[in-house]
Amino acid sequence: MTSLSKTPNFPMNAWYAAAYDVDVKRALLARTICNKKLVLYRQTDGTPVALEDACWHRLLPLSMGRLEGDTVVCGYHGLVFNSSGRCIEMPSQETLNPSACVRSYPVVEKHRLIWIWLGEASKADPATIPDFHWNEDPSWAGDGETIHAKCDYRLVVDNLMDLTHETFVHVTSLHQSEQAESPFEVTYDDKFVTISRWMHNVDAPPFWAVQLRKHNGWTGKVDRWQIIRFEAPCTVTIDVGVAPVGTGAREGDRSQGVNGYVLNTITPETDTTSHYIWAFCRNYRINEQSITQQFRQGVRSVFREDEMVVEAQQRAILDHPDREFYNLNIDAGALWARRFIDRMIQMETAIHSTVIPIRVAN
Amino acid sequence: MTSLSKTPNFPMNAWYAAAYDVDVKRALLARTICNKKLVLYRQTDGTPVALEDACWHRLLPLSMGRLEGDTVVCGYHGLVFNSSGRCIEMPSQETLNPSACVRSYPVVEKHRLIWIWLGEASKADPATIPDFHWNEDPSWAGDGETIHAKCDYRLVVDNLMDLTHETFVHVTSLHQSEQAESPFEVTYDDKFVTISRWMHNVDAPPFWAVQLRKHNGWTGKVDRWQIIRFEAPCTVTIDVGVAPVGTGAREGDRSQGVNGYVLNTITPETDTTSHYIWAFCRNYRINEQSITQQFRQGVRSVFREDEMVVEAQQRAILDHPDREFYNLNIDAGALWARRFIDRMIQMETAIHSTVIPIRVAN
Amino acid sequence: MTSLSKTPNFPMNAWYAAAYDVDVKRALLARTICNKKLVLYRQTDGTPVALEDACWHRLLPLSMGRLEGDTVVCGYHGLVFNSSGRCIEMPSQETLNPSACVRSYPVVEKHRLIWIWLGEASKADPATIPDFHWNEDPSWAGDGETIHAKCDYRLVVDNLMDLTHETFVHVTSLHQSEQAESPFEVTYDDKFVTISRWMHNVDAPPFWAVQLRKHNGWTGKVDRWQIIRFEAPCTVTIDVGVAPVGTGAREGDRSQGVNGYVLNTITPETDTTSHYIWAFCRNYRINEQSITQQFRQGVRSVFREDEMVVEAQQRAILDHPDREFYNLNIDAGALWARRFIDRMIQMETAIHSTVIPIRVAN
Repeated sequence: MTSLSKTPNFPMNAWYAAAYDVDVKRALLARTICNKKLVLYRQTDGTPVALEDACWHRLLPLSMGRLEGDTVVCGYHGLVFNSSGRCIEMPSQETLNPSACVRSYPVVEKHRLIWIWLGEASKADPATIPDFHWNEDPSWAGDGETIHAKCDYRLVVDNLMDLTHETFVHVTSLHQSEQAESPFEVTYDDKFVTISRWMHNVDAPPFWAVQLRKHNGWTGKVDRWQIIRFEAPCTVTIDVGVAPVGTGAREGDRSQGVNGYVLNTITPETDTTSHYIWAFCRNYRINEQSITQQFRQGVRSVFREDEMVVEAQQRAILDHPDREFYNLNIDAGALWARRFIDRMIQMETAIHSTVIPIRVAN
Repeated sequence: MTSLSKTPNFPMNAWYAAAYDVDVKRALLARTICNKKLVLYRQTDGTPVALEDACWHRLLPLSMGRLEGDTVVCGYHGLVFNSSGRCIEMPSQETLNPSACVRSYPVVEKHRLIWIWLGEASKADPATIPDFHWNEDPSWAGDGETIHAKCDYRLVVDNLMDLTHETFVHVTSLHQSEQAESPFEVTYDDKFVTISRWMHNVDAPPFWAVQLRKHNGWTGKVDRWQIIRFEAPCTVTIDVGVAPVGTGAREGDRSQGVNGYVLNTITPETDTTSHYIWAFCRNYRINEQSITQQFRQGVRSVFREDEMVVEAQQRAILDHPDREFYNLNIDAGALWARRFIDRMIQMETAIHSTVIPIRVAN
Repeated sequence: MTSLSKTPNFPMNAWYAAAYDVDVKRALLARTICNKKLVLYRQTDGTPVALEDACWHRLLPLSMGRLEGDTVVCGYHGLVFNSSGRCIEMPSQETLNPSACVRSYPVVEKHRLIWIWLGEASKADPATIPDFHWNEDPSWAGDGETIHAKCDYRLVVDNLMDLTHETFVHVTSLHQSEQAESPFEVTYDDKFVTISRWMHNVDAPPFWAVQLRKHNGWTGKVDRWQIIRFEAPCTVTIDVGVAPVGTGAREGDRSQGVNGYVLNTITPETDTTSHYIWAFCRNYRINEQSITQQFRQGVRSVFREDEMVVEAQQRAILDHPDREFYNLNIDAGALWARRFIDRMIQMETAIHSTVIPIRVAN
């Protein structure tokens, strides 16, 4: 899959969301992450485990075997592996080869997701897991899903880092002609790239107009915000909302408005496919479960429109291997995100090449 | 797709039929020709346009966008391209990068087809478009279709340049035992390779027997002709018909007979797939539309038999990369066609290698 | 398919079972064996024939043509090939090119199978065809099938050379906890590798318990045997059965027991697919055809479980090209089988490399 001679598409020393918590059960789940085939399961005490999904003996995927207590029994010859990947039983074998093991990876359950670290285990610090706290914060309500996107995870990041595309891709749902023309600001520090776009005194787009009207009856002009925050290599949280015009949202008082967070983390499956895990959380009408369901369906159909675009873009990249991307002002956020990703990859490959030059349209 | 290190399969400096006129509408049509991905459409005045099908910005196929007046709006970020491929609008961008464009290709509508030139535009002379005039000549009636053939276009040319195969492939429709044994004559000049086969005083094959009987009641022996004319790289017109024996058809008087033209032009899609565009025209009973329909269906089913053969041949070529074709006397026409094609390719690749030697069975 | 630069996966100088006798008829059967595309048929006198499945002229598979007497007529231009592969008729060609032929391969019908030799014809000695006599011996009854297995034939050999996997793969049918723990003996001579496992005084597994009870009413403890005999490169016969405990089966008196032979020969189709031909024969209740049918269905469903495992193993090998197999004591039989295969391959490739070192777990 990934070739040694080219720059990797993703860093290995990073926490990646492997799955939603509910998707890892007392059962063997096969999942490929960063080109590595893994088997995920929970131990009897609920602790999640991730092992290499190929038996030490004859490579049969362990996910084709069975879970027995906290161990996995290979479905071919019955070798038994514990949750550290150590083989603790072999058929017709009295002494066990101490090297008989499969690789085990650090996993942490946090903010309703199972996070995995595939790189150097000594560097796996749970404190650096991306912040998804809205996903379980009691003052927020929300839900999400995992999408299998047939593209490089970075194309989804690009997509999220510029919401100008809403005008063209999401014509019926989020489209707002003011948006493509509104100024935005890109800032960054050591950890985050942030893009802020405020639209003052505009009509709310269809989705938000309904939210605000149901929330407090407001049907007039609004102030609208989109604050996109990227954390390398693949997490994007988007703070979105509208408030009645001039009620001070930009200055910090959002009490009159409605606010949502779109949480996105796009885990590379292979070089050209991804597990796109998202959630949409809101801080109003948080006990109305029908809204949660309605939003999940709504976001799903918006994201389906994005999927068609980024998957077509992936095919176009493969069809035009010599073509580069050109960049516009609107790509400033995506460009910074790519630089952060490249820097992570360069640091661990220790190839001190300069960042790939990117032509920017003027 | 095509590799630089091997001889190309087709010349680029040639007019290729991109589509039937009716298939290019006020809509975006994605079509690959000679390994190039294109988007075709008509402007408001009906003029056909062909652009490269990958946005300058981020490669999304323009065919996934929308037609707006005479321009194409990219479905991702809304870049607008005019019919020359020049980008005339970008989101949030005041000045436009003058290099922002996609390639535009010369297209000409002629004889009910849309022809495209993918090579050096300065050499695109509409006067050299192959002659398909029967397709719109009021003294002829006919119709045709586009077949997607999963093979190198040259296998279809080979197939058409030797009608001996009718005996074996088209057993029930066109088969005539005299045919495989009838002498034929191959001639060529600077432009055409012509193969003429006359069968004198023979029974008409089933298809032609019916035509002649309905035309003038004749049920006896006939003189039959097949005059195949090839124009490089991929156009083959076949003048076919029968006349009551001894009424002078060979000498030039076909007034007692029935005459058809099978028009074929086989446009490379990729190295191993083609758009095979054909028509069957006749100069008798030209106002009977049911005959036109019946013939279209009849030719379609005959060509389906050919498709199965040439597609199987393509798979066999891929399965036996080291095997060459051997040639028989019946392949003389195909051999000359291949030489004409090779000459065109050599002229534009400027690789003055000799023509690939071909072993001829004696 | 197969690459010249790597060690071949199979020897060419060997008899391979091409098909069951009933599958080769008065019709053209396309079949790929050892990466070679072949067409099989029977002559009017019933003699089976195997020719290269690509016409000398233009490579069309001859299997797309038609059988005429003892000859094959190509479905494109009508070239006629006799059963030696010699072209004896060409359209419009008075003299025939003497080199016009397709390769013909030695085939022998024996023990209800059609065997083919694809290597040096001078070395094809029918006396070396593997022994499948149970398949037509009147004191045995049985039947079998051909499975298309999407894996290297050697993975099926490995699977058959160690029946420990029955415990884990065939949990409901053949599972017996004593089995994985029973000692076995591996012996070999110039021709065969033999693995013998005797289980004394055990409960019969479900399948055999039913057989023995219906045979002579015995429901008590049994002596059980599995004697696996491998003949390179790909034939494995397994002598299996149970007898009432202590009635002398091991010493040679099986008269109180029930005995079956599982006959297996796994013909490489390509490097990663196989034609797995098997039969199950028994020497009791040989006239009860319903048992034959019931056994065929039973063995089929057991083998389906094996197929899932070996096909998954094949995919895992392709996914992990740098991983080796590790070996346990239970793999002793498979290891010897692999050495026999490697020796055959090395002898004919004349590359006197040493046998690939294999790590054995201690």
